[in-house]
Amino acid sequence: MNISLTQALQSFLLSKDFSLIKEFCLSAHPAIVADFLSSLEPQEIWSVLSALDPHKRAEVFCQIDEDSQVALANRLSRLDLAALVTDMSPDDRADLFRLLPHATQEMLLPALAQAERDDIRRLVSYEEGTCGSVMTSDYAALTEGITVAQAIEELRKEAPDRETIYYVYILGEDRKLLGFVSLKDLIVSNPALKVSDIMHRDLIFAHVTEDQEEGARKIAKYDLIALPVVNDAGSLVGIITHDDAIDIINQEHTEDIEKLMAIGGRHEVASYLKTPALDHFKNRVLWVVGLAAIGLISGMVIHRFEATLAHFMILALYLPMLTDSGGNTGSQAATVIIRALALRDLHLEDIFKVLFKELKVSLMLGAVLGALSYGKVLFLSRSLAIPGDMTLSMIALAIALALAIQVITSTLIGAALPMGAAALGCDPAIVASPALTTIVDITGLLIYFNVARFVLGL
Amino acid sequence: MNISLTQALQSFLLSKDFSLIKEFCLSAHPAIVADFLSSLEPQEIWSVLSALDPHKRAEVFCQIDEDSQVALANRLSRLDLAALVTDMSPDDRADLFRLLPHATQEMLLPALAQAERDDIRRLVSYEEGTCGSVMTSDYAALTEGITVAQAIEELRKEAPDRETIYYVYILGEDRKLLGFVSLKDLIVSNPALKVSDIMHRDLIFAHVTEDQEEGARKIAKYDLIALPVVNDAGSLVGIITHDDAIDIINQEHTEDIEKLMAIGGRHEVASYLKTPALDHFKNRVLWVVGLAAIGLISGMVIHRFEATLAHFMILALYLPMLTDSGGNTGSQAATVIIRALALRDLHLEDIFKVLFKELKVSLMLGAVLGALSYGKVLFLSRSLAIPGDMTLSMIALAIALALAIQVITSTLIGAALPMGAAALGCDPAIVASPALTTIVDITGLLIYFNVARFVLGL
Repeated sequence: MNISLTQALQSFLLSKDFSLIKEFCLSAHPAIVADFLSSLEPQEIWSVLSALDPHKRAEVFCQIDEDSQVALANRLSRLDLAALVTDMSPDDRADLFRLLPHATQEMLLPALAQAERDDIRRLVSYEEGTCGSVMTSDYAALTEGITVAQAIEELRKEAPDRETIYYVYILGEDRKLLGFVSLKDLIVSNPALKVSDIMHRDLIFAHVTEDQEEGARKIAKYDLIALPVVNDAGSLVGIITHDDAIDIINQEHTEDIEKLMAIGGRHEVASYLKTPALDHFKNRVLWVVGLAAIGLISGMVIHRFEATLAHFMILALYLPMLTDSGGNTGSQAATVIIRALALRDLHLEDIFKVLFKELKVSLMLGAVLGALSYGKVLFLSRSLAIPGDMTLSMIALAIALALAIQVITSTLIGAALPMGAAALGCDPAIVASPALTTIVDITGLLIYFNVARFVLGL
Repeated sequence: MNISLTQALQSFLLSKDFSLIKEFCLSAHPAIVADFLSSLEPQEIWSVLSALDPHKRAEVFCQIDEDSQVALANRLSRLDLAALVTDMSPDDRADLFRLLPHATQEMLLPALAQAERDDIRRLVSYEEGTCGSVMTSDYAALTEGITVAQAIEELRKEAPDRETIYYVYILGEDRKLLGFVSLKDLIVSNPALKVSDIMHRDLIFAHVTEDQEEGARKIAKYDLIALPVVNDAGSLVGIITHDDAIDIINQEHTEDIEKLMAIGGRHEVASYLKTPALDHFKNRVLWVVGLAAIGLISGMVIHRFEATLAHFMILALYLPMLTDSGGNTGSQAATVIIRALALRDLHLEDIFKVLFKELKVSLMLGAVLGALSYGKVLFLSRSLAIPGDMTLSMIALAIALALAIQVITSTLIGAALPMGAAALGCDPAIVASPALTTIVDITGLLIYFNVARFVLGL
């Protein structure tokens, strides 16, 4: 939103001219109104919201970020909150209810009508991360016996209360899901036809306990506006809409990318600046300490070869180069594999094809990086004193060979570990960059010292 | 798709029983049919496709991956290809056209009707990555003078040819975009009303040269089914649909995550296994070599202090621990910032708030990691010979202090660099993990040696 508009609205607010604000809020998209409100104090937000009609008020409220929603809800009277919650869409109101303090929940429930109370209780009962926890109960449904004309007439009546009427689900006894028709189908069909004659019976649906990511993937793959969600009995219990699918995909992506960098925590699409520094610290420290613990092993390997290093100090100078190269090439391989697994572009049974391909890639990378490091040692260490009967080029050769082997090993480990994690039912992203760097440090050091001792005959 | 179904279909195919295959293909979702076809050879794919009616054939073809589409298109006769392309949706056919060899393009164009030819030429003229390059010209549009009843009647006629009729754009002279009505609005409104009375004038739209990512973000933010795209004159030239938005978001995620790991290349949602090893190598080698070049600076820093290392070999043993810790904590900070910037959760003007927050986080991380490394040195090096009048605990203190300062510095650099890149108009993700690791190696080594010399009085 542009700044002049915000300023204009703030001057309306100062002048208490709510008719102007109301006019803006009525014509603007709820998300734009919510953007404007985000710059105001809670009591100002509520004074704008209360000037709107109940439907628009609820729409705008749903677009405000969750922390502010909770802060506002806690300031409202029982009746105001109950009225607001009643007008919210079922999925948004269940999300809000989950975040409210227990006392506010207990205060709110008795103030709601039986239908809303039951709906909230049902939606919050599904475990977080499942399709049930993100679905809405605001769907359009019809029985199969009616005609196309009757169906359109029915939708005309229901539409104002439904999140989407573009897909209409056809239900049998006990709300069993039989098929669906799109509003487009209804519009183009002969009005005298039975709905059962034109409905699609090849339904794409999700189970209520299915992973929300799986639901979002179905919406993406089959280009759906909404995905029906059924229970064990095959009865329709809700739908996930296309806009929720995008939110799920964005949330999962944040989760992947943060796991990749060894950051823990809730992985909600929370605000960076609103999260306290202590929480950021907690999200990061566990992994960093864990990696430092694994780093003990690298330290022991280095100490095991301290006599070699004391004699050949030049080898110590190239330790950081070795560990960095292994970490970088291993992380690249892991990233490509993790992303391919996430997009379902790779499957576990492809493991040998993957390793063979990564072997070819790593041979090329190893050759290039080995040659570069050979040149680097000759250049950087040209004036260094070399002990005994060694020559600098022999030492450079040993370092280059070790580095090439390390690049090949790290790439293969980087490709294999995410697939191994997936095979064990873990998220492949947990073995990415920092974890992998720490692991290939250990193999790298063992390769380095053994190659050096072999080539240099120590 | 389950395996038994694939087997059943393959036995149909062997028996040349196309009526059975056709029956399956007619009732199944095009994406499911395309999944089944992906396991077949090109000539088998075409024999299945040619058994379908033209509309379904085009729908299924659009769901096949791009490489296979091109391979199939190159095998078809001019007339078959022209017929297929005519039935494809405008955005998918423009995508295919871009990928065809020049000779096939030249052969195809004269075989198409004037309207399709012009449409393809127009759509492929937009630069890749813009809203113009991903939009479709298959939208429903009406003029403002008509009534709701007339509008529904008009849509009924147009619907079979339109990708979506759920949003209908209202155009003035020269196709100027005036507003839109949803099919839901039309269904619930009094049929005698004018469309201009019920249309929304507060339009969310994109410009044809705008970044496709920006278009997808608008669809996500405003929960749209389709986003209208206009040219300089404000005339409607196409729409981006909600399913394309998900594809764009997934593609951008892949791009972000690969940049984060210093992998170059096209960043298309291409297949891992189908990409030749040489291409994987090329995508990775440039960055790895670049980083090795920057690594020369670290090498020089180490050599500058080789006399110190020769005397205090113990310092060399902890070089990998120092560089790893700096790389890990810096990457964590960079990742959090890059993601917050991508989700528009952070803005450039927040830089000082960010640095202050990261300073607090890094002080905590530095204290923890410094204390751990102090213990680690005492434990690992307890039997190491210490030169001169030094004690092991003094050396451990020097290493721990240097590590803590390095963690703080790396975290701040990790937070600042992505914001700096964004300020320069670059993608923040380019300064992520491997690039950052290489950069903070240099600062880390300088900190390490200077702190050691200061504390130990060298």
